[in-house]
Amino acid sequence: MSQAMRAWRPASCALRLRKVSRPYSAATTLRYPLQKPKAIAELLHKNEASDDVQIDGWVRSVRKQKRVAFIALGDGSAIDPLQAVLKPEQAAELSHGTAVRLRGSWEPSQGGKQSFELQTKEVAIQGANDAESNPLQPKFQTAEYLRTIPHLRPRIPANALLLRLRSQVIASLTRWFGEQDFVQTHTPIITSSDCEGAGEVFTISSNASKDSPQKSEPEDQAQVEHFFRSPKYTTVSSQLHLEALAQAVNRVWTLSPTFRAEKSDTARHLSEFYMLEAEQCFVSDLNAVMDVVEGMMRAVVNDLTASKLSQELLRAREASAKETDTDDHVATNVANLEERWQGIVSADAWPRITYSEAINELNKAGFSLAYESGLETEHERWIAQHLGQGRPVFVRNYPAIQKPFYMLPNASGGRIRGTDTVACFDLLVPDLAELVGGSLREHRPRELLEAMQKKGLAGGNLDWYHDLRKYGSVPHGGFGLGFDRLLCYLSGVGNIRDVVAFPRWYGRCEC
Amino acid sequence: MSQAMRAWRPASCALRLRKVSRPYSAATTLRYPLQKPKAIAELLHKNEASDDVQIDGWVRSVRKQKRVAFIALGDGSAIDPLQAVLKPEQAAELSHGTAVRLRGSWEPSQGGKQSFELQTKEVAIQGANDAESNPLQPKFQTAEYLRTIPHLRPRIPANALLLRLRSQVIASLTRWFGEQDFVQTHTPIITSSDCEGAGEVFTISSNASKDSPQKSEPEDQAQVEHFFRSPKYTTVSSQLHLEALAQAVNRVWTLSPTFRAEKSDTARHLSEFYMLEAEQCFVSDLNAVMDVVEGMMRAVVNDLTASKLSQELLRAREASAKETDTDDHVATNVANLEERWQGIVSADAWPRITYSEAINELNKAGFSLAYESGLETEHERWIAQHLGQGRPVFVRNYPAIQKPFYMLPNASGGRIRGTDTVACFDLLVPDLAELVGGSLREHRPRELLEAMQKKGLAGGNLDWYHDLRKYGSVPHGGFGLGFDRLLCYLSGVGNIRDVVAFPRWYGRCEC
Repeated sequence: MSQAMRAWRPASCALRLRKVSRPYSAATTLRYPLQKPKAIAELLHKNEASDDVQIDGWVRSVRKQKRVAFIALGDGSAIDPLQAVLKPEQAAELSHGTAVRLRGSWEPSQGGKQSFELQTKEVAIQGANDAESNPLQPKFQTAEYLRTIPHLRPRIPANALLLRLRSQVIASLTRWFGEQDFVQTHTPIITSSDCEGAGEVFTISSNASKDSPQKSEPEDQAQVEHFFRSPKYTTVSSQLHLEALAQAVNRVWTLSPTFRAEKSDTARHLSEFYMLEAEQCFVSDLNAVMDVVEGMMRAVVNDLTASKLSQELLRAREASAKETDTDDHVATNVANLEERWQGIVSADAWPRITYSEAINELNKAGFSLAYESGLETEHERWIAQHLGQGRPVFVRNYPAIQKPFYMLPNASGGRIRGTDTVACFDLLVPDLAELVGGSLREHRPRELLEAMQKKGLAGGNLDWYHDLRKYGSVPHGGFGLGFDRLLCYLSGVGNIRDVVAFPRWYGRCEC
Repeated sequence: MSQAMRAWRPASCALRLRKVSRPYSAATTLRYPLQKPKAIAELLHKNEASDDVQIDGWVRSVRKQKRVAFIALGDGSAIDPLQAVLKPEQAAELSHGTAVRLRGSWEPSQGGKQSFELQTKEVAIQGANDAESNPLQPKFQTAEYLRTIPHLRPRIPANALLLRLRSQVIASLTRWFGEQDFVQTHTPIITSSDCEGAGEVFTISSNASKDSPQKSEPEDQAQVEHFFRSPKYTTVSSQLHLEALAQAVNRVWTLSPTFRAEKSDTARHLSEFYMLEAEQCFVSDLNAVMDVVEGMMRAVVNDLTASKLSQELLRAREASAKETDTDDHVATNVANLEERWQGIVSADAWPRITYSEAINELNKAGFSLAYESGLETEHERWIAQHLGQGRPVFVRNYPAIQKPFYMLPNASGGRIRGTDTVACFDLLVPDLAELVGGSLREHRPRELLEAMQKKGLAGGNLDWYHDLRKYGSVPHGGFGLGFDRLLCYLSGVGNIRDVVAFPRWYGRCEC
């Protein structure tokens, strides 16, 4: 009890309270353990008749005949609908999209498609449904059109499936990282600096911080009173903060929103996206970081292929392949999708090649790349396609000049053709190219300071990051995985704008 | 393979690739399943001698005697340190904070405090440590001072413990919501509107969007080219977007960062904080929403009290109580902390009282509140303290005028003293007051439109939200829980700035 509370409390209070001991207990209604409502997915697996079944859902389609009506009912728990048999008059007010609560009996089906169906006794419409003016119609609509109605498109069964995929992958990761003694953390979104010392950032400002009475006047920079005293930005990576937390508990990870104010217009980039990042201490060998990436992705795909979601994803791909889509994304067919999963859980470890070897292979294959030139997306795709043979491919030891200041240089043995390399890797997969980037971090205070000075980052907002090396520094490394890209890769969805419920990119922020 | 890739691909490529089948397999080094490093927590529980043990950690203290030295070693996995016995010369270069790798034998201890200790054979210092200039000294330092060094303070064992608590609670929630068929989702951070139709928001802007060559000129609003075409903000709540996703999969939840640009300076508010929000469809009874809140928190505390974390939290509270802290937060003693947990998992359900009953009880206790006046924090604290008797208290059916536009009005029976009420609740706990807020949502299109019009929200950025009621609307409800506040409540930490690793509030955004 706070000081303020003590001050007013009447002397007789304790006494009176004893008399009204738990006055409201009797009125409570907790039903615990909770009874969760029956999902359609569960009922579809029930091959046993049942007299009294109640099920909730949205009508996907209505088919009315003279003496009988059929509706397909969905609730997002399964890509398949439940078939309910109604009297035509019960279906009179139902249309595509209507939310209903049905009661009836679960009985062997007369028809062929499903083994059981609901013989409906009661139909209770739950709310309004103006099916005709619904921008989401039960027919083929282009991906580009659907992106204009992100508040409605999750209702398409294949999109609801992507929501469930995201949820299941998060659950797999949470379990796996816990088993590996990684501590899940929440790193800040509002930060003082961008991680790479480059990259376009979004700036944060607040009207609450402007105390001037002349709010409508144009202001120059000097006049602005910053909410946080100085300019702040939405984060481009959790890495630097994660490194601070790793020095407290050794191994940390986060799944956190990150931002780039880039005018990209591709199937692989968003302005707001989830990044999975992890850091581990007491690590001097880049292989240990790659082991975590590979182990993590194997665990996710093992869980996926062991679940019914995998079969649903394959059926969704099959259905999607039949539709004509003018979208420019690379369509993934069913066979490719299974190959992707098999490649990830392959009995053979994933290839780990050097940047230098990658350049050699590319040139042997007909490219003509200088060592220093760097890998473009098309090169990364080629590497993944041809050197991985179905498996993701790690490419490591890039020239230092291509990489950010915080990466650990390789010892002199890593110097190739007169160029310094850093202990880093990119993980490349077919079609999507880069999925993960990681490195050992420069943990020596003097060397880090020099690297920061070269980039003009010393003596500023990143002094705290240099501090981490001054007090109890330790060799460490980590990585960042584009989480939405991973979902694209696992689901075969070709455009990242379609695996994120409310995607944001240049000029586009619907809802 | 993309069109661009096909174009350049040499004809002989397929043939050649078959020859170099999996050329890099032999060079790979995946150690799978992963060998995770031994944590100190694990070793401390090992009451069995072992010849060859390797352990990593940071030196918490060094005690040197003539013929022997003792170090206390921590790695964040346990609040207790491991004791290692060294020769004095092995400890010569060690000081508070040094990262080391030790090898030795695990043997029964000679001393009294621990049953086993490490007889150290090898000491390998891992990196630089300037212990004397370290802003984080191994002595009492005020909470306010520690907030100025958020990049270092997680290394304090009690703070590392809070990182592990957060991680464990996230894991409990992920498991529990999964069992309850709730789908975990990622809602957007950048949004077009604030949720409540009030509240201070942070505005997002980007230099990348300003194409004008005269960047240094003052700009008025009309000249600014917005990155997303119109002004955008960091979200104040995921609720509205969650409602859209609930209509796809019925039950959804998210644990997501939210933002308030408020100039609050309290122990309970931050400008950036994590909110756990959930929505469920086909629900017409507010009790169903409260059941989820209560069930969820019971699951979290059951997991907590079954884990070693609970004992560590109690010990941390005990140690903290011994320190003199000038901070203004309400200290929670050990007994109170256990009572809090017991209150949550109480055999009796939590009280569910109406707003009207709450006002009556307050006035009986000596307050003098008008029905319309609303509950201030001190009233909420009183209710939690006196009516819950250790348990959290739900207060429901507040006057509509005090609440946001989207809440469902109670039927005429809910009208009290001439005032309309809404089907909502706040969950109140001692000291912290409001922890959760929830309601049924207005799902009728006409009524929602009227409510939006009253608040001046119709015809604008929230039209998409109204759309949700036009097509397949359904009774639904949900809640939002202040996740960082929950961690305060579970840990007994009095100030929210100390359970968040990098807290942001008015004027403060370190690192």
